[in-house]
Amino acid sequence: MRPGQGHAAGVREDVGRCIYELAAELYPICRSITGNGVRRSLGILGRHIDIETTEVPSGTQVFDWTIPREWNIAGAYIENERGERVVDFRESNLHVLNYSTPVRAVLPLEELKEHIYTIPEQPDLVPYRTSYYAERWGFCMSHRALQALPQGDYTAVIDSTLEDGSLTYGEHVIAGASEDEVLLSAHVCHPSLANDNCSGLALLTVLAQELGRRATRLSYRFIFAPGTIGAITWLARNEARTERIKHGLVLSCVGDAGGPTYKRSRRGDALIDRAMAHVLKHAAPSAVIEDFSPYGYDERQYCSPGFNLPVGSFQRSKYGTFPEYHTSGDNLDLIAPEHLAHSYRLFLAAIDILENDRVLINTSPKCEPALGKRGLYGTIGNDKGAAERNMAMLWVLNLGDGQHSLLDIAERAGLPFATIDAAAARLEEARLLVAPDVARD
Amino acid sequence: MRPGQGHAAGVREDVGRCIYELAAELYPICRSITGNGVRRSLGILGRHIDIETTEVPSGTQVFDWTIPREWNIAGAYIENERGERVVDFRESNLHVLNYSTPVRAVLPLEELKEHIYTIPEQPDLVPYRTSYYAERWGFCMSHRALQALPQGDYTAVIDSTLEDGSLTYGEHVIAGASEDEVLLSAHVCHPSLANDNCSGLALLTVLAQELGRRATRLSYRFIFAPGTIGAITWLARNEARTERIKHGLVLSCVGDAGGPTYKRSRRGDALIDRAMAHVLKHAAPSAVIEDFSPYGYDERQYCSPGFNLPVGSFQRSKYGTFPEYHTSGDNLDLIAPEHLAHSYRLFLAAIDILENDRVLINTSPKCEPALGKRGLYGTIGNDKGAAERNMAMLWVLNLGDGQHSLLDIAERAGLPFATIDAAAARLEEARLLVAPDVARD
Amino acid sequence: MRPGQGHAAGVREDVGRCIYELAAELYPICRSITGNGVRRSLGILGRHIDIETTEVPSGTQVFDWTIPREWNIAGAYIENERGERVVDFRESNLHVLNYSTPVRAVLPLEELKEHIYTIPEQPDLVPYRTSYYAERWGFCMSHRALQALPQGDYTAVIDSTLEDGSLTYGEHVIAGASEDEVLLSAHVCHPSLANDNCSGLALLTVLAQELGRRATRLSYRFIFAPGTIGAITWLARNEARTERIKHGLVLSCVGDAGGPTYKRSRRGDALIDRAMAHVLKHAAPSAVIEDFSPYGYDERQYCSPGFNLPVGSFQRSKYGTFPEYHTSGDNLDLIAPEHLAHSYRLFLAAIDILENDRVLINTSPKCEPALGKRGLYGTIGNDKGAAERNMAMLWVLNLGDGQHSLLDIAERAGLPFATIDAAAARLEEARLLVAPDVARD
Repeated sequence: MRPGQGHAAGVREDVGRCIYELAAELYPICRSITGNGVRRSLGILGRHIDIETTEVPSGTQVFDWTIPREWNIAGAYIENERGERVVDFRESNLHVLNYSTPVRAVLPLEELKEHIYTIPEQPDLVPYRTSYYAERWGFCMSHRALQALPQGDYTAVIDSTLEDGSLTYGEHVIAGASEDEVLLSAHVCHPSLANDNCSGLALLTVLAQELGRRATRLSYRFIFAPGTIGAITWLARNEARTERIKHGLVLSCVGDAGGPTYKRSRRGDALIDRAMAHVLKHAAPSAVIEDFSPYGYDERQYCSPGFNLPVGSFQRSKYGTFPEYHTSGDNLDLIAPEHLAHSYRLFLAAIDILENDRVLINTSPKCEPALGKRGLYGTIGNDKGAAERNMAMLWVLNLGDGQHSLLDIAERAGLPFATIDAAAARLEEARLLVAPDVARD
Repeated sequence: MRPGQGHAAGVREDVGRCIYELAAELYPICRSITGNGVRRSLGILGRHIDIETTEVPSGTQVFDWTIPREWNIAGAYIENERGERVVDFRESNLHVLNYSTPVRAVLPLEELKEHIYTIPEQPDLVPYRTSYYAERWGFCMSHRALQALPQGDYTAVIDSTLEDGSLTYGEHVIAGASEDEVLLSAHVCHPSLANDNCSGLALLTVLAQELGRRATRLSYRFIFAPGTIGAITWLARNEARTERIKHGLVLSCVGDAGGPTYKRSRRGDALIDRAMAHVLKHAAPSAVIEDFSPYGYDERQYCSPGFNLPVGSFQRSKYGTFPEYHTSGDNLDLIAPEHLAHSYRLFLAAIDILENDRVLINTSPKCEPALGKRGLYGTIGNDKGAAERNMAMLWVLNLGDGQHSLLDIAERAGLPFATIDAAAARLEEARLLVAPDVARD
Repeated sequence: MRPGQGHAAGVREDVGRCIYELAAELYPICRSITGNGVRRSLGILGRHIDIETTEVPSGTQVFDWTIPREWNIAGAYIENERGERVVDFRESNLHVLNYSTPVRAVLPLEELKEHIYTIPEQPDLVPYRTSYYAERWGFCMSHRALQALPQGDYTAVIDSTLEDGSLTYGEHVIAGASEDEVLLSAHVCHPSLANDNCSGLALLTVLAQELGRRATRLSYRFIFAPGTIGAITWLARNEARTERIKHGLVLSCVGDAGGPTYKRSRRGDALIDRAMAHVLKHAAPSAVIEDFSPYGYDERQYCSPGFNLPVGSFQRSKYGTFPEYHTSGDNLDLIAPEHLAHSYRLFLAAIDILENDRVLINTSPKCEPALGKRGLYGTIGNDKGAAERNMAMLWVLNLGDGQHSLLDIAERAGLPFATIDAAAARLEEARLLVAPDVARD
């Protein structure tokens, strides 16, 4: 059996549950673009797969950017005059403006409000806000809770530190038969947001476990890095090796009921773009496929013109378009094992294409070969499957001219790649198809 | 007058009736992929056009296939205990499984049923079934008739032979000014099916008569061969001459009220593909044009990757999609002179394009020439025809730059090829257009 | 500031009114393809911009054509037996068949009718008719007025001359930094038709005034010539200089409420075609964009195959499709300052693209540059404009690879060229974008 072939059917029944539970374990941690939240998260992933962690000191120049000071937080709250905590970081780490400077101050409600972020249109949700590059302190809370606060003095306490330290990212590599790499990347910088962070980290970890069990043709590099600055840092430190990256996916928001959404790489017609479009066409009819745009997740960096890597982006609901996006509504209720499993299967199907797409040559190209005498031509009758398998064989033979890969053929035939691949395998066994180098001998 | 030009209008009024009557004469014969049914059918065509017949012995290797033993049948029936024939080959040759081995046996109804084919969903129709490459005996009948049979013993008799002999095909060639050939092919292996066989054989014969009366630029090769094995045999014996084939059409089911349907050649943009699409656009608005697929009639062989000939496929209703397909419903009531005549005119119009498409050069390319002073510019007024003729002249002049053929121009102008061709002829007379070799002098 | 940049906002509030008043001044003049009407019209334009007038004598050969004799008219009328004028050129110059030979005759109504043109379907409108190349005399009138004429004798008087003279056309040139020219052309041969002539002449004149106030990169050549024969004459006399013409527009009917309509040049993908399509997409959602066809206005000559200049054609309502076309209904009520101003702004926006489209190179192509630290990244919040400006910067940086011009980027981003151009200007100031020659140093 060729490396990577035919494993898709072997997906564990409970894969969605496994991913969900790992996402749930990551969910409570207060992550940011630096700090111990990232380290703890990578530690959890490291219990499932080997994670190589890199620490890059504050102040390091990475292309046009500088690694910022490291942020950590021990706690935060707002107390009213009666000593009651009206907002508390222990309830949700979203309550603190991410990267907030430390503060300990007593101030009247009106002054406090200048440091409070809410969403008036969604009065029951706490927003997720950050201030990485402008020093500022602040709290986030529901608009309804803010409106319920009586006049009076409040004590605001943020027990955070912003000091020289380092930025942390993690990698996991699976060596395949070839040095050609598939880059799979998820951001690890969002605090308690289940879909927009935890889902991607958990899915990639379980995917890495699965691929680790296979003998693959391609190598796989998993990157768990803080958004933007983390991807930039990785690229700055690995510029020379980027030429090995032949395919890639940035993923996030892989656990909700929406979409799915695939955004093409900047190249637009890379094999990953065609593979994802093919898989979605057959396995996710509601999918939306979008052209590249320079806004989004870390495909922005991988697809910057100086790299222009063939890296697409996958989400279920597109960022910014679902009401829970960047709010406390993006919690463990928003994601579900079935959606995580669906996303996971889509990736495996796309990986099957990356692994197995190939050109084969018809050794009997003048007229159709007599399939019947070889027992290859299934009885058609009412068996739709047999008819499809026969059509797949006819297509692979007809386009087995050295000009068409199996994915080309699957697209032209309108059949799933797996069906075409299986037909090709049968015809290879019968020596009616051979690899181009064999055909030349 | 150029060869082939301007004959379309000369189509006989009664052409549909002529084709229908010839199809009706062919209809009763029991054809198969070998045997006397093919020979008798070619004999009938041979009364109208010269047919060169080729016999290829059983056992001959043709590419990956072997010519099978020859099948012939004298009669067949099922008799009940009272000596009544409940099924009789004399009523319809569809009643016998085509290529059935001989049998003479008495057996109870339940055992007999294992050898009987019906269509439960279409209980009044007799199916057409074959078993060319697996030795088997059987009968076909209507499901209703089968259900009416009482229990009891039946005598099944098939008086057939399956012996070394030969496969037969026929050819008719019209030599044109050039050795470049147009291949026109219809299968001659179906028994009493009017649309799926007889219609195509009859239409091609009448078309050959018409083209034989013309002085054509191209040569025309008509092939009347058994499906699949016949086309493969022809290709195996004529491999060297296939390079002369510049255009081709496989046709079948040309007499019913549906479609029409054109399936592009494997190349997809051959001149025949463009010519047929053009003709259908203007003369058959309900037409469906499909991309090539490797299932269908003998275009499967002509378009196999080792040949990849520019051969498309034409039907009215597409095979497999009309309820009478491969049943006793495909009888002389399914086809009609008007539909046969329509198909015939479409082919002649496409042939006019193959014959007359050419590049012409505007001898007065800087600004428009003054058409009025040459009496070429028709009064427009309310005369839609004059307006279209004027537009056709303007288009031919504007695109007469050596980069556009008349068909290119017709497509760009959205006008029928015949209109563009006529405008070009007027401008050639006025020396405002000349052939490229003249322009270079 | 680069030449030509950023002037679009400086359009005078009253530009529509200015154009309208100039059109109204031109409206009463009886123009034809030769004669004093053209000279008087050019004289009026010459009070606003410098017009260089060329006179080409009757009998001069221009490519396949000959300059005709010059036509002038002093008056014309039809008088009934009581000496009452039932038709009078003084009321409308449309009443005379344009280029009518002189006549002075008394004839009964039935004979007179052979020289009278009406539109029975539009009985209240006077048609505009010409007979340039066939000598004929005639009158045009409303069908209702014709029907009201009682039997009797009528005196028909046309006081015209058709004598050797010359054909007249006018030019205005604005020299830019480069010799590359933009050709802007309108016909000056129609008598009292407001939309189909006067609107285009007036708009071009006001546009020339505006461009004359700017320092442009490109040179601009305005041609005011009689339709067909005038454009042919200009091309015949300026054949060598046509290679300077890099972009062009023929315009007419620019003042009514319909369309707008843009017809692509024969090339189909010239920069002017892309610029007009881009501008119309963003500023005129109801616009219709048509492929080139060889019928219409003087693009027929500019786009003849011997020249094939990148010249498109702009109208609001397309000629021949609005009921007032070539009738007395095409009067000053049909056009309005707002529509004239809208057309004018569309041209200026397209010219901004012609002037400013360019390729720029991202000097920080590996990952995104840190826009925030340069103060370039606007706060998004609810500011849709800031979000669009940010997106524009990201697009220009991402596609700033030397392969994409600003128009390419605007098309890909789905943003107006002006937004992309402004983002590029900000990034050029920050030295994040530079010209290709700078990038190579």
